[in-house]
Amino acid sequence: MAQNIYDDPEFFAGYSGLPRSVKGLAGAAEWGSLQALLPPLSGAAVVDLGCGFGWFCRWALEAGARSVLGIDLSALMLARAAADTASPAITYEQRDLDALDLPVGAFQLAYSSLTLHYLTDIDRLFRTVHAALTPGGHFVFSIEHPIFTAPSAPQFVTDAAGHATWPVDGYLAEGPRTTNWLAPGVVKQHRTIGTYVNALVAAGFVVDALVEWGPSPEQVREVPEWSVEVERPPFLLAAAHRP
Amino acid sequence: MAQNIYDDPEFFAGYSGLPRSVKGLAGAAEWGSLQALLPPLSGAAVVDLGCGFGWFCRWALEAGARSVLGIDLSALMLARAAADTASPAITYEQRDLDALDLPVGAFQLAYSSLTLHYLTDIDRLFRTVHAALTPGGHFVFSIEHPIFTAPSAPQFVTDAAGHATWPVDGYLAEGPRTTNWLAPGVVKQHRTIGTYVNALVAAGFVVDALVEWGPSPEQVREVPEWSVEVERPPFLLAAAHRP
Repeated sequence: MAQNIYDDPEFFAGYSGLPRSVKGLAGAAEWGSLQALLPPLSGAAVVDLGCGFGWFCRWALEAGARSVLGIDLSALMLARAAADTASPAITYEQRDLDALDLPVGAFQLAYSSLTLHYLTDIDRLFRTVHAALTPGGHFVFSIEHPIFTAPSAPQFVTDAAGHATWPVDGYLAEGPRTTNWLAPGVVKQHRTIGTYVNALVAAGFVVDALVEWGPSPEQVREVPEWSVEVERPPFLLAAAHRP
Repeated sequence: MAQNIYDDPEFFAGYSGLPRSVKGLAGAAEWGSLQALLPPLSGAAVVDLGCGFGWFCRWALEAGARSVLGIDLSALMLARAAADTASPAITYEQRDLDALDLPVGAFQLAYSSLTLHYLTDIDRLFRTVHAALTPGGHFVFSIEHPIFTAPSAPQFVTDAAGHATWPVDGYLAEGPRTTNWLAPGVVKQHRTIGTYVNALVAAGFVVDALVEWGPSPEQVREVPEWSVEVERPPFLLAAAHRP
């Protein structure tokens, strides 16, 4: 099972202060690129794996979805979702994605934002998602990029001239990585891009797009400290469908 | 058009001394993994994009292929192929892959080993390959891994304790990279994994596998200096098919 770090009070407090928590989807720099991978949502049944505060669930309804099932491991996240983004068409459930069961053939879109890199059994989840989609249904997700999760010391190294490089090691050594992001001892699971793609194919998906995301020049102008993110992508976005 | 560095005498002399040039496929550490991605070749018409000395062309015949078209930009490479791996069932042609035309629906397998990262127009080539395959035909290739090609200073950095990291920068800045590998001024084209995958999809391929290759523990025992290659993959292998 995945670590439930979002129910750690220190982590939750830190996470709640991030732009993406305060501003919702508009505060997530990669949202525009992720949105571009989504199919039309009119009349769709949607499941959001790692729904957090429910920002995407509410957005999906506004984009025409018929119903949204939002799943998260964190009671604190779901309490905020229930308070801030409740709707009769949204159901929130506290579940462990590493042990998830879903109704078969029930959804036209499975969505997941920055969650799957916490899971220990991605093959199981991809098979579950595949079975839960109707034929033609879509699976769109983002994760922390494997170049970002790999290093034993995940910090930019800046030389005397101010040039930053990202010190990759252990890229091919998949498994847990413990970092101190918002709280000490946050455990993420590092996997290669190949492992994600091959797990999608093995589950029966057809891969439609892979986006190694970095900020646009406009975003760097707005938030100059993001300039370094162009050196190595922070996020990987993927779209696939069940044929 | 791609740089024809293999016809540079200094580069050619250096390349000719590499294990993969002296020993053929058995001297290429990634060959076993690439071979595992190949379809059955019995009766197949095969095209090898960047055939070099023709080792794969000859292997494909031995594996049952009916005919092999070997294409390379380098006259020196093709002269060696004609001398060492000639066969009535192999045709060698000197062509620029950036301006390649192929007969339509003529091949069951298109193969390319460590060549595509020299090309300037991968979209054009992928469309050409797609059209040249019969429905159900396969495209299997290897390239230098984008983590390998990205850096402005592509050398491991070793700390005082002997630990090596690979200094990634410019990963999202696609375009030429000039290195001094075997000869000064070797120009390779850096692209992200996403760009390769999306170009395959745009050309009409279905992606079957993506392998970020590093040496196995057995290979590291045989060649201890490869241990560092596990820190970041040197090669990316891909398999796709025309549905």
